[in-house]
Amino acid sequence: MVKPEVRALAAYTLRQYEYRYKLNQNENPFGYPEELKAKVLERVARADWARYPSFDLAELRAKLAEHAGVSPEMVLVGNGSNELIYVTLAATLSRGDHVIVPVPTFTLYALLSRVMGATVHDVLMDPADAFALPAGRVVEAARRTGAKVVVLCSPNNPTGTPYPAEAVRRVAAESDALVLVDEAYREFGGQDFVPLLDEFDNVVLLRTFSKAMAMGGLRVGYAIMRPELAREIHKAKLPYALNLFSEAAALVALEHFESHFLPLIEAIVAERERLFRALQALPGLHVYPSSANFLLVRLEGRPAREVFGALVHEHGILVRDVGGYPGLAEHLRISVGTREENDALIRALRALV
Amino acid sequence: MVKPEVRALAAYTLRQYEYRYKLNQNENPFGYPEELKAKVLERVARADWARYPSFDLAELRAKLAEHAGVSPEMVLVGNGSNELIYVTLAATLSRGDHVIVPVPTFTLYALLSRVMGATVHDVLMDPADAFALPAGRVVEAARRTGAKVVVLCSPNNPTGTPYPAEAVRRVAAESDALVLVDEAYREFGGQDFVPLLDEFDNVVLLRTFSKAMAMGGLRVGYAIMRPELAREIHKAKLPYALNLFSEAAALVALEHFESHFLPLIEAIVAERERLFRALQALPGLHVYPSSANFLLVRLEGRPAREVFGALVHEHGILVRDVGGYPGLAEHLRISVGTREENDALIRALRALV
Repeated sequence: MVKPEVRALAAYTLRQYEYRYKLNQNENPFGYPEELKAKVLERVARADWARYPSFDLAELRAKLAEHAGVSPEMVLVGNGSNELIYVTLAATLSRGDHVIVPVPTFTLYALLSRVMGATVHDVLMDPADAFALPAGRVVEAARRTGAKVVVLCSPNNPTGTPYPAEAVRRVAAESDALVLVDEAYREFGGQDFVPLLDEFDNVVLLRTFSKAMAMGGLRVGYAIMRPELAREIHKAKLPYALNLFSEAAALVALEHFESHFLPLIEAIVAERERLFRALQALPGLHVYPSSANFLLVRLEGRPAREVFGALVHEHGILVRDVGGYPGLAEHLRISVGTREENDALIRALRALV
Repeated sequence: MVKPEVRALAAYTLRQYEYRYKLNQNENPFGYPEELKAKVLERVARADWARYPSFDLAELRAKLAEHAGVSPEMVLVGNGSNELIYVTLAATLSRGDHVIVPVPTFTLYALLSRVMGATVHDVLMDPADAFALPAGRVVEAARRTGAKVVVLCSPNNPTGTPYPAEAVRRVAAESDALVLVDEAYREFGGQDFVPLLDEFDNVVLLRTFSKAMAMGGLRVGYAIMRPELAREIHKAKLPYALNLFSEAAALVALEHFESHFLPLIEAIVAERERLFRALQALPGLHVYPSSANFLLVRLEGRPAREVFGALVHEHGILVRDVGGYPGLAEHLRISVGTREENDALIRALRALV
């Protein structure tokens, strides 16, 4: 009864470990500010949980539009940006269609494209070229296959590479595909691709409250695109995808973005640069520049799998082993933590490599 | 860029009205118990919102399994049961496939089937036969089209009709389709189709916290099926679909089901029966028996649209105009409210019909 494309998939899994420091999911290590938590809990305590949430999320969409500098009819809100990836792919892909994904990148794009029956074509990015987006090869692959969708992640997970607007522009201009740009980590690099929406009707930007906004546990994401495209994608979306609690937390976060979240983002960026320099000084380890809240490292002396195991079992530090990603054998992805967490990581890696 | 099947859809919409009494979405009128809200808010206040939720929701799935009398590997949890409809259809349907839906019923099944590129075949149920499930005609349609999926809603929304297990059994036994049974309203009629899972590997039961459990605003649903099917459907599901707040509210609700929710369910059922008798006594109105938390009424003297408008504009009572559903011209669906709300409705209808 289940489609062969789904039966052929390996499930997206996550092994459980015991740890003291959690540096594996690119979460905001400072957490949602306590003062704002209290405001959210107050609002939610007054709400009637039995009632369906707002049908059109007008207030949240208006605030998001203002935050992003677009109009509300350009904004769709989802249960995490993952839901918006799911819906956008469901709205565009049928069995036999083609999707282009520059890799290594977040694995969910390919997994969900396959659920929709599409064939996924990887375009390998080169570590020697700092994982730069090979716009020419992406366009060539999209044209050759008649791809319906190209998925770009910028800054890219797990490499940390930001794609220049010029490269994204070229992909949007020279292919007939919908270009889905996941900007999950944009706040850590200052990227803003909204101006591309003036030029292109085939670009969808995805953003999230899971990283900079310290709401990974609450699942709020949004997409920005031309109003006429938003109207169509919206038809493929479930009503009431956002619960009233997460909605309240997103509203409060937006209301206090500059006062409470910008300082956290600046602290994470400062820690990322400190951690980058400290890791760069370690022998037997190569660290890549990053515009996100994590660093990609290549281990030169010892298998990454072994270092991953030693970090978690001997030092209680959980990072992400990305050795299974194309071109990333021997690599680990390390989320930027608090100063204490980063110091613990530096000490542990110094002892291990 | 958007699929023609999606472009052809009318969006699922909900018009906004001003109202005093809200009897249009089959919500629990008593709300989530205040004492339990406090417990949930305490748990959530202690949580780190920046961290992703539990990957496998092991605790919640174990409690749901115990609640339903099945094993945890038979349970999938979703962002409302809507998400599980979406995922189950995505995992089974490709362009050109066929889906059988007895109507009138919840419109989302057909909408989402079309998003997946499937053709939907309605099997019309007869008001003269109290909207009984025409199992023979459903089987015939499934066989003739080679349908991949049959969707049954029992008790059915918006008719209130419970389908006998024998009729569902016949559909599961005599068709090769996956039989998706939406049990959203089961608690108000005492239905339990879990024993069907011992007999059939092609049955998926959908349940929700949105109705009896007073959590419409929090979006929690679950699906029960054979473990081997659950493993496959799970592959098409997004990770982290449930936020930590809704997870906590679901856990607390299950822990207090008998003490706090059973009495609410019994009160709603008692009010439903009282409302049924009161409406039955009104001339110019036919009310159908219901096993759910709403009643379907047919207006005999006056157009339903006009009565709907008078109810909301003159009496502040918002009900659901289901006149657009196949076979339901001149019908309204009325959620069972509190005693006060139901009394207001009875008075208003008495004045209007």
